[in-house]
This record gives sequence, C-alpha cells and structure tokens, in this order.
Amino acid sequence: MQVSYFSFDQLFSFSTHVFKKIGCSDADAELAAKVLLSADMRGIDSHGIARLSGYVRLWDVKRINAQPKISIIHETPSTATVDGDSGLGLVVAPAAMEIAIDKARTVGTGWVSVQNSNHFGIAGYHAMMALQEDMIGICMTNASPLVSPTFSIERLLGTNPICVAVPAGAQPPFVADMATTTAANGKLEILQRKSGVAPLGWIQDKSGKPSTDPHELKVGGALLPLGGDREHGSHKGYALGAIVDIFSAVLSGANYGPWVPPFPAYVPMPVHMPGKGIGHFFGAMRIDAFRPAQEFKHHMDQWITRFRSAKTAEGFDQVIIPGDPEREMEKERAEKGIPLVGPVVDDLRYLAEKFEIELPAAASVGS
Amino acid sequence: MQVSYFSFDQLFSFSTHVFKKIGCSDADAELAAKVLLSADMRGIDSHGIARLSGYVRLWDVKRINAQPKISIIHETPSTATVDGDSGLGLVVAPAAMEIAIDKARTVGTGWVSVQNSNHFGIAGYHAMMALQEDMIGICMTNASPLVSPTFSIERLLGTNPICVAVPAGAQPPFVADMATTTAANGKLEILQRKSGVAPLGWIQDKSGKPSTDPHELKVGGALLPLGGDREHGSHKGYALGAIVDIFSAVLSGANYGPWVPPFPAYVPMPVHMPGKGIGHFFGAMRIDAFRPAQEFKHHMDQWITRFRSAKTAEGFDQVIIPGDPEREMEKERAEKGIPLVGPVVDDLRYLAEKFEIELPAAASVGS
Repeated sequence: MQVSYFSFDQLFSFSTHVFKKIGCSDADAELAAKVLLSADMRGIDSHGIARLSGYVRLWDVKRINAQPKISIIHETPSTATVDGDSGLGLVVAPAAMEIAIDKARTVGTGWVSVQNSNHFGIAGYHAMMALQEDMIGICMTNASPLVSPTFSIERLLGTNPICVAVPAGAQPPFVADMATTTAANGKLEILQRKSGVAPLGWIQDKSGKPSTDPHELKVGGALLPLGGDREHGSHKGYALGAIVDIFSAVLSGANYGPWVPPFPAYVPMPVHMPGKGIGHFFGAMRIDAFRPAQEFKHHMDQWITRFRSAKTAEGFDQVIIPGDPEREMEKERAEKGIPLVGPVVDDLRYLAEKFEIELPAAASVGS
Repeated sequence: MQVSYFSFDQLFSFSTHVFKKIGCSDADAELAAKVLLSADMRGIDSHGIARLSGYVRLWDVKRINAQPKISIIHETPSTATVDGDSGLGLVVAPAAMEIAIDKARTVGTGWVSVQNSNHFGIAGYHAMMALQEDMIGICMTNASPLVSPTFSIERLLGTNPICVAVPAGAQPPFVADMATTTAANGKLEILQRKSGVAPLGWIQDKSGKPSTDPHELKVGGALLPLGGDREHGSHKGYALGAIVDIFSAVLSGANYGPWVPPFPAYVPMPVHMPGKGIGHFFGAMRIDAFRPAQEFKHHMDQWITRFRSAKTAEGFDQVIIPGDPEREMEKERAEKGIPLVGPVVDDLRYLAEKFEIELPAAASVGS
C-alpha cells in the first residue's frame, strides 16, 4: 500500500493549527498535538493523527469542549478525582497525571481517577511523564464497548489499556503499554485494510463462535479478552479489562461498561448513562519512597540485561523488553518521517479544507 | 480419585498445632493456619494445606524463621518497604497489608513492598483484608521461576499472581485473583495426577516448542505467560508477570527473575542472589478518597448486575463475576468439608508423626 511520509514537525504544526481552529488555547493545542503524534512516532498508528478528524467530529457535535475547566472535585493527600469538563482527553490526561506526580512528590505516591473526559491518545505518553521524575508511572482508561466478557455475546468492555512505565539507570526504561484484549483494535484495522485473516482467538462472531473475519465487529461480533477463550485464560483478560473500567470510571463517576460513549461521532450515545464522559486512572510512585533511586536503578538495569540476554528458542534473536519496539520505531520515524496511508491523508485534506489551512506536501512517497 | 473430607475446624486445629511446633507464637500459628486454609476453602487446593509440609521442610533447612521481627525499613506517608525477616509469608503478608491499610486511613492510599519473605498462600486473602475497611485491596507476589518470557527457553519468572478486591454494596465483592500465566501451576498439578493432557498454549518444551505434556516442567519445559504465544498476546502476559516482579522485588530489595528462591526445600538456592528472600507488593485505596463510599457501591452493584445478566453464548448459563466461583466453593466446603487427596493426607500423617501430634480422622470419604 502506498504511503506518504511527513516529518514530525509538519504534522505537529498542522495538528496544532487544527486544535487552535476548534478553539483550543495555544498551549492546549500544542500539548494535544504532541500527545497525539507520540502515538505515530511510537508506531501505534491507530491512536495518532489518523484520529485527528475523529476528534474534530466530536467537537462538531459538541461532545468536546475545547476550553475545559479541569478541576479537582475530591481529594486526599495521595488521591484526587478530576472532572475533565468534556475536554480533549489529550489535554485532560496530562493535567491529571501532573496532579498524580505532584501528590507523589509530597506523600510518596499519587492516584487520580478522572471523569468527564474523552479519548486520551496512547496510555504510554501519560505514564512516561513519571519517568523524568524518577517515578513509576501507571495509566489506564476505559473505552467504548467492543469486547465481550468470557461466555458472553454482548460487548460490555473497551479494549481498556494499561500502561506501566518504570525508570532504569544505564538501560532505557521498561514501558509496557497494552490493551487488555488478545489484539488491540488497531491490529484489526490493519487486517481490514489488507483484507487479511485474523488469527483464531482475537474475535468472535455475533453468536459467540470463534471467527477469523476482521470485519466481524461491523456485524455484531466482538473482540476477545486477552487469553481468547476460557481454556486459555480469557477470564483473566476479562478481569483485567474490568479492573481498568472500575478504577477509571466507577471510582471517578464516569460511564462504565456498555455505557461508555462511542468515539465515532455518528454513533448514537447509549441511553441511561450512569456517569459523565469516559474515565481514566493515573498513578505515580516515587522510587525513593521505597528505596534509594540509584539502588533501584542498578537492580532495574540488572533485571533488564538478564532478560534481554536470555536464551531464545530457535528462530528468535532476542527476548524483548517492554518498550523496546516502540523506542526503536521512534528513532526510525525521527529519521525517516511518519508514513501515512491514503485514507489518513484524505482525512487531513478534509480538515485542511474545512478550516482553510494548508496541508503540507508529503516529504516523500513510498510503500 | 478417592478423597477424604475434613472440616475446616479439624484442619485449622491441626495446622495451628504444626505451626506452633516449629516455634510460631500462638497468634502467628493461628493466623498462618487461617491464611493457609483460606486457599482450601476457596478451592485453590494447590496453595492450601497441601503445602503445609513444604513450609515445614523450609523451616527444617532454616529458610523460615518462625519468630520474625517484621519491620519497616523505609517509608513515606503513603508507602513502606517491609523486611519480613525470613518469616512465613502467611504471617508477613497480613502484617504488610495492615500497614498499607493504616496508611490509606491517613492519606487515602497505602502501598507496601516487601523483601525477605516466603510463600504467602493465596493473594486473595491479603487483598480481601481491605474490603471490610471500604477499601480496594491489591496484592501481588513474585515466585520461583517456572515461566519463560515470550521467545525464550529460560525460566525467568514465577506465575506471579495479581489480586484486586473491590467492595460492592448489596452485591458480593469483585475479587479477581489470577496467575499471570495461561494456567496456574496448580492446574498443571491436577493434570499430572490424572495423567491428563494440557491444552496447547499452557506449556512449552525445553526447546520452546508447544507441548501438551503436563510433566514437561520436570524436563526443562516452562509455563507460558497469559496469551500463550506472541500471536495471542503472550508478550502482555510476560509484561504483567514482569510488573509483578519489579513491584514486589526490585522496589523492595528482594530477589527477582531467575534468582527467586525455590519453594521445595530440596532444590538448591540460586547463586549470586541480588536480594533477600521473595518479594510481595500490597496496595489499599480508600473508596472515599475518590468519591463517597455509598455512591461508589451503588454503581459497583450496577456494574456487577449488568455484567452478570449479560446475554450468553449458547451453552453457557451466565457471565461470571470475578470471585463468584471461589465464594460458591467456600460455601460448599463450609457445609461438606475440605476434600483432600491421598498424597496430601499422607503428608499430614508424616507431619503428625514428626511432631507427635494427632491427625484427626476424616469426617467422611468420597470420590
């Protein structure tokens, strides 16, 4: 498939412009663009600039407030509940993570549950904010329902990702950022574009039978929790997705389960919604709240080097440390630019016309 | 297979007696027996009285200190690092969870990482201590290495369980207690006794190939992380097991990865151990540190009833809420007693002779 390469700076400037056009302050527009593009840079294309038009469409239908008053509505020394005031999750989430980090500075750890927010991009960006503070960062969010709990044919959970970012010393940080499903929805979207076949264990059809058709979700099918089926531990993936839902939304007063608002603006909102917007949960733990940071980093380096040098099965070069592939992708894209497929470029063209701004010319075209 | 039924009281009295014989105080002996038997009551037979002789053998080789001085070696208002002084994990873990709960009372949440401990029974017991305080309880532990990270043939992680216990209102609590592997080691032990066949995705042989032989671990094979293989998300199960290892041991100063001490006393200790004993991690979050407890419980009830009443696929009666099966088992065993298989009864007989105490007669025998 043909792709056009754009530099980070080109797409950052364009996205910032779009966010300003919907009414964001300069600072918020730049932050939103930076968070959004961190997904493209790290290779999680489904959560990056491909979603920019989606955010704008939510603003079109007045589901996103471009000038939110983000506020703490409940707190203790180590916790806060934050109302995102229907803001862009791309802006609400970093603000909430800052609160968690501040609390950790004072009492060792900080934990923030957020209501009334929207899609926040990749969990990794927010969790990794803790790293420069010598803290462990934790981030999760619920999302619109695409996943059936074990034994069910209803879609009751989102792909509900969890990210944990841990600083190391000489080694790069450990960053695990994962949907609690067998496969993230983005992987399914790639198969849909290629008209590929999904491995068994990723999705089920509307009757609950295993399916390999990546288009199954359009006709009542569902993504499966990590594990795939009961015999392979799908009840654990379901429990993990449930924990994310509870921490993000039942704790904060956001919507949960089947009531989480959909991302596509054209999908009708659920009825009898029990809360406000979607929910997130953030944590920050100061390393030196447990042991001296240098000691911890020394052992974290030893942990990483031991795992990375583990004996591999035939056909595999190396055991991967969580965060390695995304970091390598970031380096590659900083050099080569960010590849966008045709439909994404068309979306950006639509936004350029809508807001009468200029879409930069692709730096190069490849495949 | 023939089983003998014993009442909780019979086994509690016997276990308490054994723990006293190795030198535990009366209070510690009773606590250890209660924690140990909570596994049998909840149906997690691999972690209950079947392990009693294993703890005694660790005491025989001086790896368990029956009179530990459990102490806080580092702390902040919301955190503590605890040295278990080589005590029984069955005693160290509740003490550490109490510290987490105390800190949560004061600053909203409490987080405790533990070094220098031993096997602590089931994670569920400790996490559930938070429930009566209207807190969410979190508990994890590392364990001796039986699990290979994705792409590896070395055993570098334990089954490293995570438990999260969440209070509800009219509904029973949500309690997810799970190994971060496709199948817990206890399930493999059941197949070994039956000479059964394990499903593909649970284990690999020593060369890293998928295997169905439940005896594979005795000849260099390994358990697989939740997900089973890369295509089905085993890198996520591996990351979860790694997070448990880091929180439990790299934070606390316990041993991690391949250096975690083995449970069987006859297995030699690893060389160049980087820490002390095995590690655990505990968390307690006060519900009302985020929103009023009654409000939370109302929504938690709604969450539970919505999921439990979800439409099921053909052949399944109901969607299960994490904690349901264990609670039903607890009720059943309170009535019928705890069934023990022959080898476990033999083990208790060995302990009765060793310590010259009386083994109660089985209340009944069944199959």
